[in-house]
Amino acid sequence: MEGDPTLRLRVCDLNCWAIRYLSKRRQERVRLIGDMLRREGFDLVLLQEVWSEQDYSDLKTKLRSCYPFSHYFRSGVIGSGLCVFCRFPILDTLLYQYSLNGYPYMLQHGDWFCGKSVGLIIVKISGIVFNVYVTHLHAEYCREKDAYLPHRLVQAWELAQFIRHTSKAADVVLLGGDLNMHPEDVGIRLLRGWTGLWDAFTEATRFEGCEDGCTLVPNNCFTIKTELLPFPLGIRIDYILYKAISSFTVKCEELKTTMGTAPGMDIPFSDHEAVMATLHIQRQGQAAGAHLGTTELTLVDVVTEARTQVGVGLRAAQQQRYSMGRMAVLALLLLLLQAAAALGALAGGQPFPKLSFSLLAFLAMGVLLLTTGLHLFHTMEVKMLQGTEEQMWMALRALQEQP
Amino acid sequence: MEGDPTLRLRVCDLNCWAIRYLSKRRQERVRLIGDMLRREGFDLVLLQEVWSEQDYSDLKTKLRSCYPFSHYFRSGVIGSGLCVFCRFPILDTLLYQYSLNGYPYMLQHGDWFCGKSVGLIIVKISGIVFNVYVTHLHAEYCREKDAYLPHRLVQAWELAQFIRHTSKAADVVLLGGDLNMHPEDVGIRLLRGWTGLWDAFTEATRFEGCEDGCTLVPNNCFTIKTELLPFPLGIRIDYILYKAISSFTVKCEELKTTMGTAPGMDIPFSDHEAVMATLHIQRQGQAAGAHLGTTELTLVDVVTEARTQVGVGLRAAQQQRYSMGRMAVLALLLLLLQAAAALGALAGGQPFPKLSFSLLAFLAMGVLLLTTGLHLFHTMEVKMLQGTEEQMWMALRALQEQP
Repeated sequence: MEGDPTLRLRVCDLNCWAIRYLSKRRQERVRLIGDMLRREGFDLVLLQEVWSEQDYSDLKTKLRSCYPFSHYFRSGVIGSGLCVFCRFPILDTLLYQYSLNGYPYMLQHGDWFCGKSVGLIIVKISGIVFNVYVTHLHAEYCREKDAYLPHRLVQAWELAQFIRHTSKAADVVLLGGDLNMHPEDVGIRLLRGWTGLWDAFTEATRFEGCEDGCTLVPNNCFTIKTELLPFPLGIRIDYILYKAISSFTVKCEELKTTMGTAPGMDIPFSDHEAVMATLHIQRQGQAAGAHLGTTELTLVDVVTEARTQVGVGLRAAQQQRYSMGRMAVLALLLLLLQAAAALGALAGGQPFPKLSFSLLAFLAMGVLLLTTGLHLFHTMEVKMLQGTEEQMWMALRALQEQP
Repeated sequence: MEGDPTLRLRVCDLNCWAIRYLSKRRQERVRLIGDMLRREGFDLVLLQEVWSEQDYSDLKTKLRSCYPFSHYFRSGVIGSGLCVFCRFPILDTLLYQYSLNGYPYMLQHGDWFCGKSVGLIIVKISGIVFNVYVTHLHAEYCREKDAYLPHRLVQAWELAQFIRHTSKAADVVLLGGDLNMHPEDVGIRLLRGWTGLWDAFTEATRFEGCEDGCTLVPNNCFTIKTELLPFPLGIRIDYILYKAISSFTVKCEELKTTMGTAPGMDIPFSDHEAVMATLHIQRQGQAAGAHLGTTELTLVDVVTEARTQVGVGLRAAQQQRYSMGRMAVLALLLLLLQAAAALGALAGGQPFPKLSFSLLAFLAMGVLLLTTGLHLFHTMEVKMLQGTEEQMWMALRALQEQP
C-alpha cells in the first residue's frame, strides 16, 4: 500500500567461540565483539557460544546504552550459549531444547553438555511483530563419516517444527545461527523447505564479504586449517534466514560478513565470521501467503532423504542399545559367578585371591553401571529417532495428499 | 452470528495407570478402556500413562473403526505415556519435553525416566482449528513436604508458555491431562491465569460423577487409601481445560466422571477416574479477545507466589550442587592420598594392606563418579530454575507495565 511505513532492520549474527578455558584470547575477543556491536549499532544481535554468563553480563553492561534489551537462554550443564541483544523491548521468550544432541561419553566433542536449543524472542517494531529465533546445531566433526548427521537432522526438523508452530501470529520470522550445515546439505533444504524461510545470502541485492559468503575461512587465524583443506574458500555454516508471514514483504538489501582481523588488532572477533544483514520490510496490500522456498514436489524428496538418514541413525542407535544391554548382562553374570565362587571358597575354608577378586569385581561393577546407563541413553535415542521418523512420515503423507 | 454452525464435541481424558509389570491387572484394564472408548464413541480421547507401546498398538487396532486417527508421543527412557485417539484427521503434532522432571536417583518415584512432556495435536473440525494439548505433570508424593513442587511449577509454567506460543492461530484450545495439582494449588492458578483457560468442571452446566469432581477417590480399589486420608472425598487432579481464541465461544454443557467399577466387572478402568466433557462450540460475531480467567491484579500475585516457590527450589538445588561438588573433591583427595601412600609403601619396599586399599579405592572412585554426575545434574537444575525465575520476572514486569 502506498504511504505505508517501511522498516529497515540491521541484524547481526555471530558464533563468538567463547568457551571458558578453551577458546584462545577469549576475554580480549569478547571485548572486541562488544566494541564492534556498540560501534555498528545494529537493531538486533544474535550470538552463539557465549558459554560463560560472566561474558554475557560484561557484554550486557557494555551494550546497555545502545541495546537496552537482552536475553540469555539457559539450558544444559554449560548453558545454551545463546543470547540476544536488541534495541527494542523483548515482549516474550521461549526455549526449546533439542531432544537429541550427541553423546555424553563423547567428552572430546562436548556438544551433549551444552543443551543445544533454539531460543525465541518476540519483538514488536513499528507495529510489526517479529518472531526471532537463535540457534546452534550439533557440530560436524568429520564430513566423510558424520556420525552426528541423524542427530543434526532431528534438530533441523525440531527447529522447523518449532518455528512453524510458534510463528503463526508473527508478521515476520527471522532465524540466525550457526547451523553447522553447508547450504546444499539435506538439513538446510529440509529446514528451508518445511518453514519457507529464505536465505539472506542468496537473496541479498548487494553482498560484501568472504567469497561465497563463507563464515569459516582458512584466512582466519583461529580456524583449523586441516579441517578446511577440502574447501579452499572455506564453508558457509552461519545463516540469517527470514520470511514474511502476514501482509508484509521482506527483502535483503545488503549482506556482509566480517573479514580478517578486528580493526587495529592482530586477531579476528572469533573463529567464525559474523553475518550482517540489512533487511527491508514493507507492508503490502495482500497477504504474502505461505509461499514455500521450494516446491512441494522437491519438498517430498527432501523429507524422504532426511527420513532415510534418520532411519540410518535409528538402526545404529538400536544396534548400540543392543550391544550395551548385552554387555550389561555379561557384567552381571560375571559378578554373580564371582560371588558364587567367593562364597564357595569361603564356605569350604579354602584360601582365594582376595585382591584380584575384588579388583575384578570392581571392574565388573563399573562395566555394569556404565553399560546400563548407556543402554538407557540409547533407548531414549531410539525413541526420539522413531518419533522423528514418524513425524516425517506424517508430513510426507500430508504433502502427498495435497491436491 | 445467526445460522452459523455449532459444534458439539465429546472429549474424554483418562490417566490409564498402565505401567508394565507394576500396575495391577493392566492388560485386562486396557481391554476394558478400549471397550468403553469404542462404546462411548467420543470425538477426542486424551490418555496418559500408556507406557507400553504394545498397549497403544492394541488400543489402536481395537479403536481403528471409531477413532481412525491417533498419535503416540515418544520421549524419555520409558516414553511419555501420552497418546491421543481422534475421530478427525490429525494435521500436525509437536512434543515439548519439560526441562525439569524430578531426579534420576529417586528410583522409587521414577518420574525422571518418563520424560514428562506436553503433546500437541492440531485438528480441524467443521472448519474450526483445535489445538489439543495432552500432558502429565510430576506426581506429588507428599503434600506436606513436597520436594517436587518447584519442578512441577516449572512444568506448569513451561506448559502455559508452550500453549501461549503455539496456539496463536488456533480457534479453540483444549488441554486434558493429569496435572497432579489440586484446583486451588498455585500451579493450577498460574496455568489458568497465564493462559486464560477455563476449567470444564467449574464451568459445566450439568455435572454427574464423583463428588466435587474428584478423580482420585478412596472408593476406587486401586488407590492407596492412606494417601487419601486427609481428603475423605478424594482429590481432583485430572482436568479438561479450554478456551476460545478467535471468534468462537466454548461452553461446557456437561461434565462427567466415571464412578466405581467398569460395567459388569469387579475392577475400575484405572486408579484415576476418567473425565468426560461435552463442549458446545459456536461462532460468534466478534472475536472473543484474550480474556483471561483471572484479573491481571490476581495474576501478579499468582506469578509472584509461583516465583517464590521456584526460588525456594533454586536455593535447594544450589545447596545440593555445592554438597555434591564438595563430596566429589573429598573423594578425589582420598584417591590421591591413597595413591601417594601406596606409592610410598611400594617405593620403601614396605608391605601394605592391598585388599583394604583396593576396596577403599573402589569406594572412593564410586563416590567420585556418582557425585560428579550429580553435581552436573544439579547444575542443570539450577540453570533451568534460574531461567524460569527470570522468565517469571519478565512476565511480572510486563503485567505491571500494562496500563
